[in-house]
Amino acid sequence: MPGTAEVPEGLIPELLERLGDRLSLSPADLERHSRDESHHEPRLPWAVAHCHGVEDVQAVLEVCRGYLCPIVPFGAGSGLEGGAIPIRGGVSVDLSGMNRVLRMDPEDLDATVEAGVTLSQLNSELGPRGLFFPVDPGSDPTLGGMAATRASGTMAVRYGTMSANVLGLRVVLASGEVVTTGGRARKSSAGYDLTHLFTGSEGTLGVVVEVTLRVQPLPEAVAAAVCPMPDLRSAVRAVIETIQLGIQVARIELLDEVMVGAINRYQQMDSPVTPTLLLEFQGARDAVAEQVREVADVVGAKGGRLELMPTPEARSRLWEARHHALYAAKALRPHARTWSTDVCVPVSRLADCLLETKAELDRSRVLAPIVGHVGDGNFHLSFVLEEGREEQFQEAAAVHARMVERALRMGGTCTGEHGVGIGKTSFLRQEHPSGVGVMRQLKATLDPLGILNPGKMLEVEE
Amino acid sequence: MPGTAEVPEGLIPELLERLGDRLSLSPADLERHSRDESHHEPRLPWAVAHCHGVEDVQAVLEVCRGYLCPIVPFGAGSGLEGGAIPIRGGVSVDLSGMNRVLRMDPEDLDATVEAGVTLSQLNSELGPRGLFFPVDPGSDPTLGGMAATRASGTMAVRYGTMSANVLGLRVVLASGEVVTTGGRARKSSAGYDLTHLFTGSEGTLGVVVEVTLRVQPLPEAVAAAVCPMPDLRSAVRAVIETIQLGIQVARIELLDEVMVGAINRYQQMDSPVTPTLLLEFQGARDAVAEQVREVADVVGAKGGRLELMPTPEARSRLWEARHHALYAAKALRPHARTWSTDVCVPVSRLADCLLETKAELDRSRVLAPIVGHVGDGNFHLSFVLEEGREEQFQEAAAVHARMVERALRMGGTCTGEHGVGIGKTSFLRQEHPSGVGVMRQLKATLDPLGILNPGKMLEVEE
Repeated sequence: MPGTAEVPEGLIPELLERLGDRLSLSPADLERHSRDESHHEPRLPWAVAHCHGVEDVQAVLEVCRGYLCPIVPFGAGSGLEGGAIPIRGGVSVDLSGMNRVLRMDPEDLDATVEAGVTLSQLNSELGPRGLFFPVDPGSDPTLGGMAATRASGTMAVRYGTMSANVLGLRVVLASGEVVTTGGRARKSSAGYDLTHLFTGSEGTLGVVVEVTLRVQPLPEAVAAAVCPMPDLRSAVRAVIETIQLGIQVARIELLDEVMVGAINRYQQMDSPVTPTLLLEFQGARDAVAEQVREVADVVGAKGGRLELMPTPEARSRLWEARHHALYAAKALRPHARTWSTDVCVPVSRLADCLLETKAELDRSRVLAPIVGHVGDGNFHLSFVLEEGREEQFQEAAAVHARMVERALRMGGTCTGEHGVGIGKTSFLRQEHPSGVGVMRQLKATLDPLGILNPGKMLEVEE
Repeated sequence: MPGTAEVPEGLIPELLERLGDRLSLSPADLERHSRDESHHEPRLPWAVAHCHGVEDVQAVLEVCRGYLCPIVPFGAGSGLEGGAIPIRGGVSVDLSGMNRVLRMDPEDLDATVEAGVTLSQLNSELGPRGLFFPVDPGSDPTLGGMAATRASGTMAVRYGTMSANVLGLRVVLASGEVVTTGGRARKSSAGYDLTHLFTGSEGTLGVVVEVTLRVQPLPEAVAAAVCPMPDLRSAVRAVIETIQLGIQVARIELLDEVMVGAINRYQQMDSPVTPTLLLEFQGARDAVAEQVREVADVVGAKGGRLELMPTPEARSRLWEARHHALYAAKALRPHARTWSTDVCVPVSRLADCLLETKAELDRSRVLAPIVGHVGDGNFHLSFVLEEGREEQFQEAAAVHARMVERALRMGGTCTGEHGVGIGKTSFLRQEHPSGVGVMRQLKATLDPLGILNPGKMLEVEE
């Protein structure tokens, strides 16, 4: 099995020879590449390879193959399921230096970027051309990392996830070969869909080095609103009716009252402490106004009220508050660690899944605010756990397991957008008992030495 | 290599023992399963297995593995690239008897069907529930066949192709194992995306036996229109501007003047013989009216005019005429065979690709009306070739090859929706020189004996 406690003799000198000062052994650098934003235990890599081009990635792979040394791709380190943690040691392949936007096309509405381009960088380059990229996980990940984890976020209800927005990839395989998948045509029946195979493969089938993306024209008008609701069920019902009416909301997010309280405290706000919907509307000016009216009616009929954000600045503050929800949750307890986890169910089962989970949380002693991209049937628990309080971790694990099993019973999935990583391997087997066998065959075919991000997704960590 | 001229001794008796009268050797049945709607040479299968359930498919595979006997899935036989032709003999696995709609859910907007359910059957069952399935290739294929070829058609510009509308699959692998992929959640990051891997695999990785689909609510209002345009370039420019304005047209089809003439003759119509756009608008009543106004302006500015269909019956006749375009083309010559082929390019290159192709056609002696799902950058040539006139086939092959190479040079794909099948294998290698190696590895992993639809997609037919 690749990866041991011991650094193989000769590995580091050989990497140094190939990469020179792009190979880092500095303690600070190793520490930064030992963790992501998840609750999983950090683990130091043996070295960090700061790759500046495809050739660097190929060089690392060539050396690592000889030593059966694990390689773990690293983008922004913003993952929530441990995907970038080198749990069996090895080399952290940092792609953040590959940060060029290679092309943008306002006519075809697509762009090609190197894997290390961040979401904020991409949007700041697209903006002056009247464009934006609509997948918004909340943090500022790299596009390579987003493709590798099949990320999604607040706007997936309108624009889809990375699965719908990646048109093509360049991937370095374990063999060192570079594969280009997909293309710029909007549809193709040409061969197996390798683009979707690598999208969401979490670095276990290859290293994504380039991504071609659909982009969107900036909307003529944008409006955002906050809707305090009487309770969770009415909030979810309002969401379902909005979707069934075919109203194309760009964002429709739910916060439970615990999360509203946490955000109030963290951001010095004073929103009513009740389950709350956050909404965004995008489109032509008239269409946005019409959507706002329609949703206000739906929300009103459920006992809530829709409050429009009066200025673009207020709108920005609203989404910043939403994006910082995990930090707000963390600030609820001193010396806390957060464990953010997500499930996704058919929308018709969302109210049941949320309410049963909420009831169980209320009965437990663990603190876990809820946020959700509820238009997709997707919601998150953010456990707030105090360091050293092992019983809290154990109780959280039990609540978590029952939530995932509940989602699976309801026809849902063990993860809507965070990925399998370290924490969901056993749930993946529950969800796809027959599929996991096929996935293992594909993994063995494309990575016969097992050096690509070993221990993730398909293996149970010992 | 599986498949020979000779039927292996013992194969038929063993199949008969397992399938009884569901195994057919009747000459008429063999003949019907020797061909599809393509120009490719028919080839008789050795037997036809009329499968009534997953167990029948597994039984066929179990027997065929022992004889290295090819198995070729067969749905409605409406393919256009020879996917269902048993070019190396073997057993045609007819799935049309697996024709139950297993569930439909108006709240979650999804449905699960057996592979042999046809598109018309599905829509007639969805209709009374206020739903429809929006992928419309024009013919009446099975949903299994549509998934296997990643089909698309007239409404892909609005609703996407099968790639966007298949939520999950059940597939019988070469080993006989049944794999369930995907699920009913609207998004998932749980493991490799096997659903997309099997969607478009053309029966070469497994036999699709069940499909879970997104469905759509029937729109409140529908309007259709015909727009005669002064020339091809203005027609394409009108399409591009419509899309860039973000007008969500449900269908936007192009016919060149040759195809308009052919349809006039076939359907006893008298449309102006000029490049023509066919449009459909779907949505809320006001939105449809607004879309019609906006597109009428765009079309008018390009020198065309938009004529609304006055009644639902006129609208039906319009789309029926479009769907029968291939038969209309065929009727242009006595004893003709049609060869329908498609490419897809980035929309910005569509005018160039179409006009260069049209100019070459005009210089040649072959007849090939053009139709296109132009909103996606996808268009079709339908060569009309007289049986026995070998020089016509040769000239068509040359025009075809140059059209595909032109599309690839422009960043497009060798097939937007017909699949690779028999006729596009060499072009697939041109388009995905590195990807084909990976595809072959995947094929060898999932079908080590090479019995699943051999000779298609990844191999050059000798």
